[in-house]
Amino acid sequence: MAYVAVDPSVPGIRALMDFKPQTGRALSALAEALLRGESSLSRGERELIAAFVSSRNECRFCTRSHAAFAAAQLDGGEGTVDAVLADLGAAPIGPKLRALLVIAEAVQLGGLHVTEALVADARREGADDLDIHDTVLIAAAFCMFNRYVDGLRASTPDDPTAYTRMAELVVVRGYVR
Amino acid sequence: MAYVAVDPSVPGIRALMDFKPQTGRALSALAEALLRGESSLSRGERELIAAFVSSRNECRFCTRSHAAFAAAQLDGGEGTVDAVLADLGAAPIGPKLRALLVIAEAVQLGGLHVTEALVADARREGADDLDIHDTVLIAAAFCMFNRYVDGLRASTPDDPTAYTRMAELVVVRGYVR
Repeated sequence: MAYVAVDPSVPGIRALMDFKPQTGRALSALAEALLRGESSLSRGERELIAAFVSSRNECRFCTRSHAAFAAAQLDGGEGTVDAVLADLGAAPIGPKLRALLVIAEAVQLGGLHVTEALVADARREGADDLDIHDTVLIAAAFCMFNRYVDGLRASTPDDPTAYTRMAELVVVRGYVR
Repeated sequence: MAYVAVDPSVPGIRALMDFKPQTGRALSALAEALLRGESSLSRGERELIAAFVSSRNECRFCTRSHAAFAAAQLDGGEGTVDAVLADLGAAPIGPKLRALLVIAEAVQLGGLHVTEALVADARREGADDLDIHDTVLIAAAFCMFNRYVDGLRASTPDDPTAYTRMAELVVVRGYVR
């Protein structure tokens, strides 16, 4: 049960956003801008960064949600997402996306872990300022969303169909209700 | 120098927000809702949580900014803020605010560090659902803002007057430009 009185029938972060709509709206708008707004990265790539960071933060709700959203929008689908979460070094993705995920991994540990060398590696693989900016901000934002969900013990459905249903909604309609 | 091409004359997160205004606007709106919107916690208390978490994340820009914003709006001013950052257990604050800062400290480590016992301790000191919600979300949000600033190496002014000038603006006009 969540630490504050939310609707127990609403899963994960949605219940927290309903608990305080003023901050809920600001958080939804941020997710929309980050994951579906203009970017040099595809929606699938951005959702993969979100799922990867959530997995490193051990946030089951966000990992399962964003893994489903990534699988629905990324070349290679679920197989690629699972491979990245299991072993980034061996996953079947291009070198630029891998280098950006290494930056995301550093952000998860803390901002000061992002070194000039990691940024130079990503540039060598073709990443530009926009790619690097969006990767760092998405990874940082999931360090917030993950802590919000687990810090208040929001509900985490066990049923896998809950996540595929959410994916259908998010892919079509987005994060803003 | 920042990792991406931002205006070097603009300090900290402002330069990053200008770099990509679409996400910059969403981040400003979130800061406004969290730190100045409706809440059971005072603006000074919320800025103190922001400064405290930023200090634990070793983000100098956010620590100095939000310490200045807290000092301008909190009973006891700079002395109280400095005492909280130096030693939470010994700082001259009430038991409810101290218990909420202990929750914020757990959020900084990770969402799963927030235990039922910490939440029960805060309730025993008078905290309600709104206090607990806002504390967790503000602490989580600064785990994002701090990583965004340091993960892209935004500039951090050394001159203390830069922060007092920002405090004058934020206290009067807020976070949305």
